[in-house]
Amino acid sequence: MQRSRRGEVDPFIVMDVVEAARQAEEAGRHIIHMEVGQPGTGAPRGATEAVAASLRDPLGYTVALGLPALRQGIAGLYRRWYGVELDPARVIVTSGSSGAFLLSFTALFDAGDRVGMGLPGYPSYRQILKALSLEPIGIQTRAENRFQPVPADLPELQGLIVASPGNPSGTMLDRDALAALIAAQPQGFVSDEIYHGLHYGPRAVSALEISDEVHVINSFSKYFSMTGWRIGWMVVPEDHIRPIERLAQNLFICAPHVAQVAALAALDCIDELEANRATYAANRALMLEGLPKAGFTRIAPPDGAFYIYADVSELTQDSRALAAEILAEAGVAVTPGLDFDPVRGHQTLRFSYARATADIEEGLRRLQAFMASRLPAL
Amino acid sequence: MQRSRRGEVDPFIVMDVVEAARQAEEAGRHIIHMEVGQPGTGAPRGATEAVAASLRDPLGYTVALGLPALRQGIAGLYRRWYGVELDPARVIVTSGSSGAFLLSFTALFDAGDRVGMGLPGYPSYRQILKALSLEPIGIQTRAENRFQPVPADLPELQGLIVASPGNPSGTMLDRDALAALIAAQPQGFVSDEIYHGLHYGPRAVSALEISDEVHVINSFSKYFSMTGWRIGWMVVPEDHIRPIERLAQNLFICAPHVAQVAALAALDCIDELEANRATYAANRALMLEGLPKAGFTRIAPPDGAFYIYADVSELTQDSRALAAEILAEAGVAVTPGLDFDPVRGHQTLRFSYARATADIEEGLRRLQAFMASRLPAL
Repeated sequence: MQRSRRGEVDPFIVMDVVEAARQAEEAGRHIIHMEVGQPGTGAPRGATEAVAASLRDPLGYTVALGLPALRQGIAGLYRRWYGVELDPARVIVTSGSSGAFLLSFTALFDAGDRVGMGLPGYPSYRQILKALSLEPIGIQTRAENRFQPVPADLPELQGLIVASPGNPSGTMLDRDALAALIAAQPQGFVSDEIYHGLHYGPRAVSALEISDEVHVINSFSKYFSMTGWRIGWMVVPEDHIRPIERLAQNLFICAPHVAQVAALAALDCIDELEANRATYAANRALMLEGLPKAGFTRIAPPDGAFYIYADVSELTQDSRALAAEILAEAGVAVTPGLDFDPVRGHQTLRFSYARATADIEEGLRRLQAFMASRLPAL
Repeated sequence: MQRSRRGEVDPFIVMDVVEAARQAEEAGRHIIHMEVGQPGTGAPRGATEAVAASLRDPLGYTVALGLPALRQGIAGLYRRWYGVELDPARVIVTSGSSGAFLLSFTALFDAGDRVGMGLPGYPSYRQILKALSLEPIGIQTRAENRFQPVPADLPELQGLIVASPGNPSGTMLDRDALAALIAAQPQGFVSDEIYHGLHYGPRAVSALEISDEVHVINSFSKYFSMTGWRIGWMVVPEDHIRPIERLAQNLFICAPHVAQVAALAALDCIDELEANRATYAANRALMLEGLPKAGFTRIAPPDGAFYIYADVSELTQDSRALAAEILAEAGVAVTPGLDFDPVRGHQTLRFSYARATADIEEGLRRLQAFMASRLPAL
């Protein structure tokens, strides 16, 4: 049976780390997980209570754009977070941000179109584009630009994907920098705002504060701590609602009904979610103190999300080998930068601090001991 | 902001019916629903109990291919239903059959490839293919072939999608007919088996009983009565597992965790699911008696699923207008055939009998009264 060219997408390097960590745990070792991009917490209690109460309902298909109450609730979030008045009709509930990317890219781009994104960046942008017969164009970013692209970096493109806070960098675009990028690529601008709500200084700016002529993509996975529920959303210009509704009807039918029920309730679980954020803030402070002590001194300014991206070029030219060594010697799983940047990722690591604070403390102790033993002369 | 050509997929005609029925209900009318392709029942009780018990777990991402126990359970279903020994490694858990189609089509076909399917057929095949920059090739089928394509009908194609039982026809391919189609299109054969388990005479034949070199797609939506949970699966040849795993990691991350928990439990809810099937069987018998009495005499042999497809060319050249008239006059929502066959669907209707038996009885009474008043001379 044949296999397509576009189906041959790159493997996730991090999966080797995940599998090696799993094997180590199976062999009885205790591993600290700084490799995975998901909260250690589950959905907030109000969300699971709403699910429990809904289990007597049939939970059949919803309309393709999502439960009206959920779309209204999400529109309310834009008022709460940004002071933006948003017509709920422009909110489209999706099967995670993954579903939103598939809808956005098919609605915006035709086969062969060139779509840019900053490197380092979320690897699935490139692979989804490739699977859709689009051409991903990686744009090398610079530390002085907070690892975000700037208009002068952009080649001829049909579209641009921007993430602020970014993954793996955690860096944010300020309003002027985001506005400049929207102005530079008005025909197809996709703003990935999946880490919004997770900031430790000024909040992130939404592209919707600047323009209605963008696709904004978000999810209940990160701030709302609901990764496995596969529920997200997009906000689109008014004249994109109908075409995307038709795409959603055919490509997905609807987002998972039970996850929509959970998400609607999660919007109101502010105390629990802000407590999660306080944990991340504490973890981040520990990391910012502990990582340099261990010897990881060249790190991106971690404005938001729950990652720290470190330049380890002084330690290695092979981040994969270094990550394997850290797992084997220190029992800490970290992600080599290769998934995020095929070029410079040989010299970078991503540390996630989304788990419990006790894990972060123990992980930092292990990293410090490991590095001290590795570099006795320093 | 630009819009792509491939994003301009066709609207669902049935949505006009659904919306008109909703408005009628809002205005206080009682409507019998024979338009929707989903059971009136929810997930089986064992499934919702498993969900309730899981709500204290974090329910984070699962591995991309799905929970190992679920993949094993699905493999066991092939033993139970068909006597086929299937390696669970070949089972890929997906976000409904929708997710499976996206994975299958991107793994098999490159932009511009021609993919065939019989008409009448599930409309989303054509729209998903279009959204992926593939060329859907509708193949007109004939009543004497049970509204299924035969090898002599096939033009030059890179792939073929076959559904048995079919939607909207409910007709099945026997083993020889299915084997002949697989032999005629070995390079890219996709067998949609979403209505398996719902038969009222001999069971449906799985493509896996004939060949391992096929993509088989199925779902928990129909027999397992779990539409809104968005959980399905595919079975692929061994050398397709890795490429599809990478696609799944990037396009979906994973199927909804909570739905995987529900699905695993649903596999064991045989008594409740067989009771549902007994309801459909009773409904089908009522329909086969009642529809001809009402004047719908030219119907496809309804081997499985929960649909009856009627040729109404003696009544109308405009199935959309007839469906609107039936809704307005009789208070019964039915689906005009246009979604399933843009050519001959002007003269066909689809009746679904997936709801409660009392609804079917009342719907048939209304249809008989309507037709008697419409055709007083007959």
